[in-house]
Amino acid sequence: MSPPRFFVPNFPREPGGQLDAAESKHAMQVLRLKVGQLIEVFDGAGLSAQARIASIDNKHVSFEVLEILSNGPPHGVSLEMAVALPRGDRQKILVDTLCQLGVTRLQPLSCDRSVAEATANAIERLNRQVLETCKQCRRNELMIVESPVTVNELVRMDSVKRRIRLLAHPYGDVPELFDVLCRRDGTDVQQILMAVGPEGGFTDDEVFRLVSAGWQQVSLGPRILRVETAASALAAIALAVSNSSRASGGNIIE
Amino acid sequence: MSPPRFFVPNFPREPGGQLDAAESKHAMQVLRLKVGQLIEVFDGAGLSAQARIASIDNKHVSFEVLEILSNGPPHGVSLEMAVALPRGDRQKILVDTLCQLGVTRLQPLSCDRSVAEATANAIERLNRQVLETCKQCRRNELMIVESPVTVNELVRMDSVKRRIRLLAHPYGDVPELFDVLCRRDGTDVQQILMAVGPEGGFTDDEVFRLVSAGWQQVSLGPRILRVETAASALAAIALAVSNSSRASGGNIIE
Repeated sequence: MSPPRFFVPNFPREPGGQLDAAESKHAMQVLRLKVGQLIEVFDGAGLSAQARIASIDNKHVSFEVLEILSNGPPHGVSLEMAVALPRGDRQKILVDTLCQLGVTRLQPLSCDRSVAEATANAIERLNRQVLETCKQCRRNELMIVESPVTVNELVRMDSVKRRIRLLAHPYGDVPELFDVLCRRDGTDVQQILMAVGPEGGFTDDEVFRLVSAGWQQVSLGPRILRVETAASALAAIALAVSNSSRASGGNIIE
Repeated sequence: MSPPRFFVPNFPREPGGQLDAAESKHAMQVLRLKVGQLIEVFDGAGLSAQARIASIDNKHVSFEVLEILSNGPPHGVSLEMAVALPRGDRQKILVDTLCQLGVTRLQPLSCDRSVAEATANAIERLNRQVLETCKQCRRNELMIVESPVTVNELVRMDSVKRRIRLLAHPYGDVPELFDVLCRRDGTDVQQILMAVGPEGGFTDDEVFRLVSAGWQQVSLGPRILRVETAASALAAIALAVSNSSRASGGNIIE
């Protein structure tokens, strides 16, 4: 079994540091760790290390760093998803799944047909879920869950050059995501921004604004997918294509 | 809004038929449908039709078929997943997601490290979930959830010729799923069988049995994915490659 992982923002590479109150409590009371046991610590920005518990007092666990395991994010692919949040527990499933898959950033989207408001409390809860997921799936850099924006704001704030911008809106004669990603100049697929609308879909007006700003519609096939299923499937496919393209140094299709 | 969908096994193409007791109750008491309203019916084998409610008596809703919408499964791709079921609600998420994505058949797998037993009750509950998902996502052919098998039984029962058999086991120098699917003769990717192990992974012995029988190991990247996340991501990627290959009539990569 791999050692348990703890989130320690800004931990020094040597000689070590201290778990915060919540992480210390988890280590002592739930996992019942003792002095000398191995743990892993990660800073949420790509740094992780093997460490050993050096001391335990009433409230805090201190550790010494043994070996740096990872110095930064694993690859150069950037995948940002702008998603109209689903209701209730499905928000948590969405965040958990996208974080495991390797999505860089999640931008909650307030749409005309949105069913859930991304309140400050909700965003905070989702960022806590990200931490849990990072501990489980051994991801060292946090997936950032941003404050919500409208489609208009999304169009205005997107200023990254040469980024592929796609919206999942499978109405009309729309190509499948995979074909769109494979049939363009492969060097482009390292920077992707994808938008997924609410259950009822984007309104015509929202689609018009996005398409007018250069976004391209993509489909995922004939079925109606739940928001979190669509977002996860899009992310899995896009990351597979991006990582493969990056590994091969360019184009996927000749 | 699309009309509500009802499952009617073996419905006649004309003139119409009757919803069973449970579907009738749902139509009358939950959706409060009336005579004359439009519905959709599907038979779970690929046939679907637009229909109109012709009569409602105490216990049953009868309908007349107006137009056949779909005559069979949407494409020739066959993706079967053999998965060690996760615990509790995550079983339901697994089935719901794989069904939406278009997986043909789900084969629960009893592994040495399995955490959940696929009892007859569990299988029945999962097949009920399939029905719910098919109604929601407009899928017309059911995803079959089979009775569980062991890895040994899986190896023995797999007799489909020329099918790609893959196991998610990302240890050692294992290629990513996407690269494996893209780098082989494209005509093969219409028939895929993929196995996903339990949380602790397949045992060495299970991997040996599968690899000895011609199965190929694939990876999904550096992170540790939950069973249902791994299965869904594998399915999304495999179906994207298969459908694209089928649409283009053969190879994806020259």
